[in-house]
Amino acid sequence: MKKIGYLGPRGTFSHEALKKYINGREGYNPVDYSSIPDMIIAVQKGHAEEALVPIENSIEGAVNATLDILAADVELMIKTELVIAVSQNLLVRKGTHKENIKLILSHPQPIGQCTKYLQANFQGVETRYVFSTAGAALEVSHGNGECAAIGSATAAEEYGLEILARGIQDNENNLTRFVAVSKQDSPRSGCDKTSIVFSTDDKPGSLYRILDIFNLWDINMSRIESRPAKNQLGKYIFFVDINGHREDEDIRDALTMVKRKTSFYKFLGSYPVFLGN
Amino acid sequence: MKKIGYLGPRGTFSHEALKKYINGREGYNPVDYSSIPDMIIAVQKGHAEEALVPIENSIEGAVNATLDILAADVELMIKTELVIAVSQNLLVRKGTHKENIKLILSHPQPIGQCTKYLQANFQGVETRYVFSTAGAALEVSHGNGECAAIGSATAAEEYGLEILARGIQDNENNLTRFVAVSKQDSPRSGCDKTSIVFSTDDKPGSLYRILDIFNLWDINMSRIESRPAKNQLGKYIFFVDINGHREDEDIRDALTMVKRKTSFYKFLGSYPVFLGN
Repeated sequence: MKKIGYLGPRGTFSHEALKKYINGREGYNPVDYSSIPDMIIAVQKGHAEEALVPIENSIEGAVNATLDILAADVELMIKTELVIAVSQNLLVRKGTHKENIKLILSHPQPIGQCTKYLQANFQGVETRYVFSTAGAALEVSHGNGECAAIGSATAAEEYGLEILARGIQDNENNLTRFVAVSKQDSPRSGCDKTSIVFSTDDKPGSLYRILDIFNLWDINMSRIESRPAKNQLGKYIFFVDINGHREDEDIRDALTMVKRKTSFYKFLGSYPVFLGN
Repeated sequence: MKKIGYLGPRGTFSHEALKKYINGREGYNPVDYSSIPDMIIAVQKGHAEEALVPIENSIEGAVNATLDILAADVELMIKTELVIAVSQNLLVRKGTHKENIKLILSHPQPIGQCTKYLQANFQGVETRYVFSTAGAALEVSHGNGECAAIGSATAAEEYGLEILARGIQDNENNLTRFVAVSKQDSPRSGCDKTSIVFSTDDKPGSLYRILDIFNLWDINMSRIESRPAKNQLGKYIFFVDINGHREDEDIRDALTMVKRKTSFYKFLGSYPVFLGN
């Protein structure tokens, strides 16, 4: 059985994503972890073969914990990407009415995703951050009937809660991109992307000169994300996704040049572009 | 009296930054707000003349709430930047010993900044997210002597707490950059930067072509930060800081060209570079 980590407990959106990723295939043993770093380090140490981690949300942006640990602390690669729609719901104990709710619990990100709904429907009602949507659902299931959680439909199922309102996120276009990280990336599929992370030397125009390399080889950059270098304010590392596979001749040559022209460089894997369901 | 907003309550790092910004000058009336959006919208509506908002931390990265609202919801400009060192402290009620602590409260960002300290000293002790370091300090001051807050030395003063451990953040190089936003930016000082935000059309290489404009006019880009466009996964807006003032001829000409070549463009102000204390 192949151990694959996800951000637990049961009922999180990561759990929903994992079910979709496994998609009925046999031989997978899902293991829940309580944090993204724990899960990724478990793969590095060989305690799990893969971890399915969120990397980007269409509204909240990059998942910094994932980017930072892939850049600094492990030697792992992305082998797959997967996009799932995030539908937030207001979950309560059976019989709780809207007007009884005095406290709303969730992870900071879903609370951010439902700002307009909360302002319109629960102005003045206390919200409290907890570590996961599933943790919020669990707490509500043990609660006094005056609290609600924001979370997935799966969490309602897992913890025996009622869905008082469905799809309460402000923006209907709420998608999260997950990646499966492991010790290997994927072979060429014909429609691939490649992820790298690098930092440049501290001279004017140094980022431009790296992007110029991609331009020279006609390589399309689909994403650039900066994160602090952490040793100095105003210094950054850059996560870049480009179209193509490390085995493509142009990608190989361009990456050789990028490696030569950067002060820090790490290859994060080539893998098939997610094309939908 | 000039009303100037900061992220309250009293004792937050924003409050520390505000004190440094005012620096004994007269005529300022500090007003605390409970969220970054509330504070920035108050300036837009004319309820306050300025707001001092965090925009970037050297470890955690961009403050997304600030970037998103400046891009989308208001017509305001940056008039000043200011950098302060963030020193996190473990705050307790007088007489609380380390071994009595069963719960640690703070905002998610400081908890993230003290991960290693917490793992080394308080493994297994519950941490709980609250909305601000000052809120955490207030809660501890009313607590049962078994909880601690992570926050500023100012918060200890404001709420009568004891500092059990100083400078507990993992990284000593923990700086936060604040900007003062108002309806006007600043005149030319001779050492200025300019902030803009834009999105490009959806063609391969379109970001590169914008950065090429800066290269053409020999303008140095000191920062690029992407945020999701929010209408579609994989579409971004870019926040860019360049060296120079809008009144400089090259900056003016380059920005005219950037405006022409982007699908969305907003000028966010020219202001003096922060040169230290």
